[in-house]
Amino acid sequence: MRLLHPENIEDLAIGAAVLGTGGGGDPYVGKLMAIQSIREYGPVTLLDLDEIGDDDLIVPSAMMGAPTVMVEKLPSGEEIVKAFQALESFLGKPIKATMSIEAGGLNSTTPFTVAATLGIPMVDADGMGRAFPELQMVTFTIYDIPATPMAIADEKGNSAILNTMSNRWTETFARSLTIDMGSSAMIALYPLTGKQLKAAGVAGTITMAEQIGRAIRESRAADHDPIGTVLRVTNGYRLFEGKIVDVARRTETGFARGDATLEGTGSMAGSTMKISFQNEHLIAIKDGAVCASVPDLITMLDAETGDPITTEGMRYGFRVVVVGMPCDPKWRTPKGLEIVGPRYFGYDIDYVPIEQRYGALTR
Amino acid sequence: MRLLHPENIEDLAIGAAVLGTGGGGDPYVGKLMAIQSIREYGPVTLLDLDEIGDDDLIVPSAMMGAPTVMVEKLPSGEEIVKAFQALESFLGKPIKATMSIEAGGLNSTTPFTVAATLGIPMVDADGMGRAFPELQMVTFTIYDIPATPMAIADEKGNSAILNTMSNRWTETFARSLTIDMGSSAMIALYPLTGKQLKAAGVAGTITMAEQIGRAIRESRAADHDPIGTVLRVTNGYRLFEGKIVDVARRTETGFARGDATLEGTGSMAGSTMKISFQNEHLIAIKDGAVCASVPDLITMLDAETGDPITTEGMRYGFRVVVVGMPCDPKWRTPKGLEIVGPRYFGYDIDYVPIEQRYGALTR
Repeated sequence: MRLLHPENIEDLAIGAAVLGTGGGGDPYVGKLMAIQSIREYGPVTLLDLDEIGDDDLIVPSAMMGAPTVMVEKLPSGEEIVKAFQALESFLGKPIKATMSIEAGGLNSTTPFTVAATLGIPMVDADGMGRAFPELQMVTFTIYDIPATPMAIADEKGNSAILNTMSNRWTETFARSLTIDMGSSAMIALYPLTGKQLKAAGVAGTITMAEQIGRAIRESRAADHDPIGTVLRVTNGYRLFEGKIVDVARRTETGFARGDATLEGTGSMAGSTMKISFQNEHLIAIKDGAVCASVPDLITMLDAETGDPITTEGMRYGFRVVVVGMPCDPKWRTPKGLEIVGPRYFGYDIDYVPIEQRYGALTR
Repeated sequence: MRLLHPENIEDLAIGAAVLGTGGGGDPYVGKLMAIQSIREYGPVTLLDLDEIGDDDLIVPSAMMGAPTVMVEKLPSGEEIVKAFQALESFLGKPIKATMSIEAGGLNSTTPFTVAATLGIPMVDADGMGRAFPELQMVTFTIYDIPATPMAIADEKGNSAILNTMSNRWTETFARSLTIDMGSSAMIALYPLTGKQLKAAGVAGTITMAEQIGRAIRESRAADHDPIGTVLRVTNGYRLFEGKIVDVARRTETGFARGDATLEGTGSMAGSTMKISFQNEHLIAIKDGAVCASVPDLITMLDAETGDPITTEGMRYGFRVVVVGMPCDPKWRTPKGLEIVGPRYFGYDIDYVPIEQRYGALTR
């Protein structure tokens, strides 16, 4: 157990955006919201998984929608808490703690607003160890834990409680409501017992995010290669180095979809990389060959500062380094790959773990 | 108070389809479902409005979706009851009676399944005195009565409880969920106190529907002009007589939309009528001039039998009589016309009450 203060949040949001693989929201927005809540209500208690009782009720809280829209439609703390309380009232039993559903600039910090406002702790875990675009894409689904009852709310005061027969149906219904709500909504879902969370969650994500963010900040301050530091902390690989020469985007069925094209610089001069995304980066193709794919993490970092670049923040001319990182082992099981493997996203390729592609050589 | 037996249902479903103005579902399907429930669980008690206590909780039950789809996806009694019970459980207080949200071949009888199965009475009233395509189009909205909490459920076992800031938002969210559910869903909504229902409902709709249906059946049996009988019972007008020569349909945003074109026969020979519909008939244009529009009722009857023809049942070559009937006076208020007047449906015309257009002459 430890207390998280505003000074922890900046590192955390940046590190979570690295794990967010381009999605999960803008770390700047996430940071502002969480810091404001902590300033108003006091620091947030972060519990380790082993500090949770097996019978405790834990409910993740998050934002849903196209990050492109979320950035423009900054939510108030009130509406985030509203979805959470609507679910608590529906469940008819007190929620012991909240947590992040995913790592990402915004969704790693969304639960801080709930925790600070309601005076409950947050658990140092998430449901992905990264960010993914759809609701059913959590390790909980691998363990057959239902996403519902789920609450969804908008800033106008509208809300709904969903009860579905599969987590894929939850995604369908919640996505339609999110689109109706203006492509951005607040959600509380996957009510879990402590026992379920210990078995099915990804442990330590908040601390991991904070470590990554701190490593970037400190190595930058010391004029030390911040990207090399990220690679060490995340066991990551330097996949590409280049300049963004094209970003084709479309906000479609509630997602920010598109493709980014990079031209190599330095040792990559003459090469081209194409990265496709659906809120998050899904696949990286270098000179026509796949060099990383979901569920492994593909993140774009600013070549100078090491700061993560979200899909909505990509701009022509940015000089970036593309980094690949191994995903949580739960995703590499047959059931995990069924939920978030390349084929689910429409790519007819087998998943190859990134370590198998690169070994230890190109770190 | 009276008991409704299977023999009442046939008349009721036919008469309700006359009031359903082409929508509200197939009376044959509605009849089968209601009769099956009554056979299984016993007759349904029909209460007059003045037999309801002011504090009694009344909840209408209905089907939502495109009638074209509902006909193909016959619901089981179980799923209709499920939506109702989900709402009762959410409200946390026993529902005293159910009722029809609208008159229509299917939705006048949907509540019989709920009433028979749960052993609760039905109230002789509805929220329209006819059928309309959208959820907010009930006289309750004129009185600022919220549609939510509302329950919606499908045959797969999925359900949701909505809480919205306006009845128009309820329509938006419920329509999206209905489309996701396969363009057909079960709903329970507009929880009302007895006092609210007495002020804001349309009284006697079930009895009225039964009278219309009985009049058609009896005059047909006696070889007596069944259409003239409908006109007398409903204070209706004979707007057109002709043959369906074209029906253009599209199932769009969860509705059955389209236009029917009729060529005049008999005294109408040489004339043409075009009727546009969105589940229900919205406007009838004869030789280029509007001759009836929402909120007044426009219904198509089989020229021989007097049977109502639903929009999904219209076929090339059918010989029909188009009948116009005055709507409930609540719809003719400024607030009523804002909700269901011709302008709401995109027709830039003023509403003219049908009696003003025709007087007593053309009956």
